[in-house]
Amino acid sequence: MSERTTLKRLPERGDHSRETIHSILDEALICHIGFVHDGYPVVIPTIHARHGDTLYVHGSPASRMLRDLKDGVQVCVTATIVDGIVAARSLFHHSMNYRSVVVFAEARLVTEPEERLAAFRAVTEHILPGRWDEARHPDRNEDKGTLLLALPIDEASAKIRSGPPEDEEEDYALDIWAGVIPLELVAGEPVPDPVLTPGIEAPEYIRDYEGGR
Amino acid sequence: MSERTTLKRLPERGDHSRETIHSILDEALICHIGFVHDGYPVVIPTIHARHGDTLYVHGSPASRMLRDLKDGVQVCVTATIVDGIVAARSLFHHSMNYRSVVVFAEARLVTEPEERLAAFRAVTEHILPGRWDEARHPDRNEDKGTLLLALPIDEASAKIRSGPPEDEEEDYALDIWAGVIPLELVAGEPVPDPVLTPGIEAPEYIRDYEGGR
Repeated sequence: MSERTTLKRLPERGDHSRETIHSILDEALICHIGFVHDGYPVVIPTIHARHGDTLYVHGSPASRMLRDLKDGVQVCVTATIVDGIVAARSLFHHSMNYRSVVVFAEARLVTEPEERLAAFRAVTEHILPGRWDEARHPDRNEDKGTLLLALPIDEASAKIRSGPPEDEEEDYALDIWAGVIPLELVAGEPVPDPVLTPGIEAPEYIRDYEGGR
Repeated sequence: MSERTTLKRLPERGDHSRETIHSILDEALICHIGFVHDGYPVVIPTIHARHGDTLYVHGSPASRMLRDLKDGVQVCVTATIVDGIVAARSLFHHSMNYRSVVVFAEARLVTEPEERLAAFRAVTEHILPGRWDEARHPDRNEDKGTLLLALPIDEASAKIRSGPPEDEEEDYALDIWAGVIPLELVAGEPVPDPVLTPGIEAPEYIRDYEGGR
């Protein structure tokens, strides 16, 4: 375990098992990717997908972020799932229940056609399982127009907080409600494109969408 | 407008109005804060609150992140709200509907008691409106034990994607469902602390919690 991913504080919230790290990356719909640009930190939300021990992010070659990253610079990718608000009796012990993963890596540009295809598929199936088999696949220009980066998931750590609040011993006697308000990213009723050809019904994987879960 | 917050790509998705930036920061429950540590980018999820034109983040003085930041280093704070999955007819035009804000700033350590109190209140009321008046306020040790950082919201930009997919002209004839799956962070039934004093009911602001909305 590298120095950077050794958790310095609240080590009981750290969890380095590969299975945990993978499951959080798989459930989170987006991540935040950080890099250094002209000496300044930049943090950008983006779509990702895990494929084995590799994390893929993709975008347009015109994006400043990806132009920077393809040069093999160091990045930090953080994915966070918010699970609830922890209301303690004291303000000091208020918290969130959450699961997060931090990955430190050097970005590698993906150019090999077979890996590009696998990565496109992973990103599609991560966001919308079932879509790969139905939507039109990228043509040559669209393929060229998609910058694809791979990051090894080697130097990574997970951090999790779950369960009820933990108050100071003397505060448990206070006459204050304490507990957790669970939070969940929930899919609503699909909204068809206003110009959708009449008669095309939403397929099951759209109607029953449940996110990364 | 500084060079860093000038959107280089898809400028139609950029929105620099102060009102829009504030509303996104207010609705997002957490943000991701990026900084440079020993030359490497680090991105950490954290709780924030806006108070006027200032963004506050807080944590333990033992946190590596906040130890770094109190020295006045440059940070990038990004808050993102995911609104939906955009299913286009072609994979290339798949996207997310989202609202995000990026703030570039130098962190300032908050030490003045009156500002600290206002910031604690802002953070509490951001996460759980109504809680400030009920929970036990920080005592002297808890106050000392909370590192509080202020960032001016000067150099900031918002980016928004909303609405239906936009496909290539020739793809509209394809026999593929297209549209948006809306996504929303929804609060579930509050879960009382298992050791909650019997007879204490959840107050209205807990029962009717609706997040930043």
